Amino acid sequence: MDKTQSRTKFLAVFPDLVDDLVAVTKQYGMPEDAIEWFKGSLNYNTPGGKLNRGLSVVDTYALLKGYKSLDDFSEEEYKKTAILGWCIELLQAYFLVADDMMDKSITRRGQPCWYRVEGVNEIAINDSFMLEGALYVLLKKYFREDSYYVNLLELFHDVTFQTELGQLLDLITAPEDSVDLSKFSLSKHSFIVIYKTAYYSFYLPVALAMYMAGVADDADLKQAHDVLIPLGEYFQIQDDYLDCFGKPEDIGKVGTDILDNKCSWVINTALQICTPEQRALLDENYGRKDAAKEAKCKQLFNELKIDQLYQEYEEKITTELRAKIAKVDESRGFKGQVLTAFLDKIYKRKK
Amino acid sequence: MDKTQSRTKFLAVFPDLVDDLVAVTKQYGMPEDAIEWFKGSLNYNTPGGKLNRGLSVVDTYALLKGYKSLDDFSEEEYKKTAILGWCIELLQAYFLVADDMMDKSITRRGQPCWYRVEGVNEIAINDSFMLEGALYVLLKKYFREDSYYVNLLELFHDVTFQTELGQLLDLITAPEDSVDLSKFSLSKHSFIVIYKTAYYSFYLPVALAMYMAGVADDADLKQAHDVLIPLGEYFQIQDDYLDCFGKPEDIGKVGTDILDNKCSWVINTALQICTPEQRALLDENYGRKDAAKEAKCKQLFNELKIDQLYQEYEEKITTELRAKIAKVDESRGFKGQVLTAFLDKIYKRKK
Ligand SMILES: [Mg+2]
Ligand SMILES: [Mg+2]
Ligand SMILES: [Mg+2]
Ligand SMILES: [Mg+2]
Ligand SMILES: [Mg+2]
Ligand SMILES: [Mg+2]
Repeated sequence: MDKTQSRTKFLAVFPDLVDDLVAVTKQYGMPEDAIEWFKGSLNYNTPGGKLNRGLSVVDTYALLKGYKSLDDFSEEEYKKTAILGWCIELLQAYFLVADDMMDKSITRRGQPCWYRVEGVNEIAINDSFMLEGALYVLLKKYFREDSYYVNLLELFHDVTFQTELGQLLDLITAPEDSVDLSKFSLSKHSFIVIYKTAYYSFYLPVALAMYMAGVADDADLKQAHDVLIPLGEYFQIQDDYLDCFGKPEDIGKVGTDILDNKCSWVINTALQICTPEQRALLDENYGRKDAAKEAKCKQLFNELKIDQLYQEYEEKITTELRAKIAKVDESRGFKGQVLTAFLDKIYKRKK
Repeated sequence: MDKTQSRTKFLAVFPDLVDDLVAVTKQYGMPEDAIEWFKGSLNYNTPGGKLNRGLSVVDTYALLKGYKSLDDFSEEEYKKTAILGWCIELLQAYFLVADDMMDKSITRRGQPCWYRVEGVNEIAINDSFMLEGALYVLLKKYFREDSYYVNLLELFHDVTFQTELGQLLDLITAPEDSVDLSKFSLSKHSFIVIYKTAYYSFYLPVALAMYMAGVADDADLKQAHDVLIPLGEYFQIQDDYLDCFGKPEDIGKVGTDILDNKCSWVINTALQICTPEQRALLDENYGRKDAAKEAKCKQLFNELKIDQLYQEYEEKITTELRAKIAKVDESRGFKGQVLTAFLDKIYKRKK
């Protein structure tokens, strides 16, 4: 399926959803200025990203149904699939608006973070709540008659809570303003990335598509889960690796994980293999807003050959995942191809 | 039913729910420091208030079932009713933790607001998310086999969103730091109090008890709604009235609505009847952190006889509500007594 076309068609659904949400607030008699505010928040915070998660719902559903192109969807079928995708994007908007406040970030997706927009400030907290609230309004409108409605609700509840658990551990392990590397560990890193990222970014889109396609036996959800969670962890480890070792011209940004005291795979791996002297260097230089200190950490990471350890990890995990995918039981209609599609997008990516 | 006993029995359920929530995070493999943090947030933010909303679920359920005392409940039945009550208290904790951040409040329930506790700060945003997330974990554990499970989920979603809409209008109409009385109106006041307070404080506990008691025909939910929403509005109008006209020794605090630029019933009523000169006085003196200016506003409210207008409003609304309650159709098992119980607690209260 053509990527640009997929994206354009997906984006075209969003204004209708804004209209649906506005209609609900009008029905409640909400005054115009508050409706405009809510619309503003929806439009500022929801589209504008890569939409990978939302688009994955559509792609996965098409694979499960054996569709070759978007034309194979009925109109209603496409719309419902896209709505599930937009519900993930709303969930992500909810997390990101709040994450930017907690991280005191400045920009997001090339524009000021929502809480930094003139006049917004702390109201962004309630706006983030409403982005989450919006997804249940949409699920109710479009899915309440479906047999799997309650499954969708539970899935969103579970994944939301999981993401919040990951966020909590991240916040208390790696506060931006106080460095304590003794709090870091590879097992904490694993919990953080699986809970904060893998569930909502990898498992959620596939599970949603599976419910809608009627291929959602517990055993099949488990097959998807057991590949997508380690795959999501791999994706984040790769992200951490690229932040430190990727070329800015490839990854499209200058990595800041060292400066920001991020609990990344790179630092955690280094902590596991470094000598006491090297550890002292890291204690002194990691997570400080200082380019010279950042450079010292980078040099040490090079000495420790973290780069090579990453390559070994990548080969090992992808071999394992391919083996798991090869053994997928397709007898109930689930397809290993769904998982391969994700893996192929990630393997050896440079950006 | 004895009030102290009701409260004690209700409070005794909460530690079990904390254990349930902790068990889920343990099952996920969450590290101990994050589990302790979450427990700390649950215990700091959830009990400690008046628990009116939570206790109302139990009281309403008992009335619907014709129970005379807590001994009439089976053990499991009491626990489930109390859990629904605690789910409202969790929902309220979610709102209050965030509201205190947005209002930059200092204390809540006689202790520092959560975000002001040492080391918490912006992490309180994610903690508020988790308080909400927790209620769906509990509903899933205790209610997923019940026929009305999906109704409970939708009810919480609807009421959560409604509360967020009310909060939004409140935030943009009456920001603490910029006074603009032209934004105020009695109709906005009505929307704010109904959406921000009445739904979750009055309708939600009764509707939850109705589902659990199996008395939840749409027509009966509507009967409850159509009394409880205006009753919740009346409650808040009374709260606004008491803030200005109540005696500190009765209400147990010194009112601050004038100083805080609150969009209260008192100012909105005054705005509707004042002369242009009086309006100028309000524009100059309302919502300023200045005791002398506050006193000027109070004097004007006295001149305008807002006190008397309140008494008239109270007589009118209670007469209307009693007439509505008298006409309640009890043929499907709903009881007007449920509504009278709420009204009796509110009518002419002084604190
Ligand atoms: Mg961030
Ligand atoms: Mg963050
Ligand atoms: Mg990164
Ligand atoms: Mg407040
Ligand atoms: Mg407030
Ligand atoms: Mg008040």
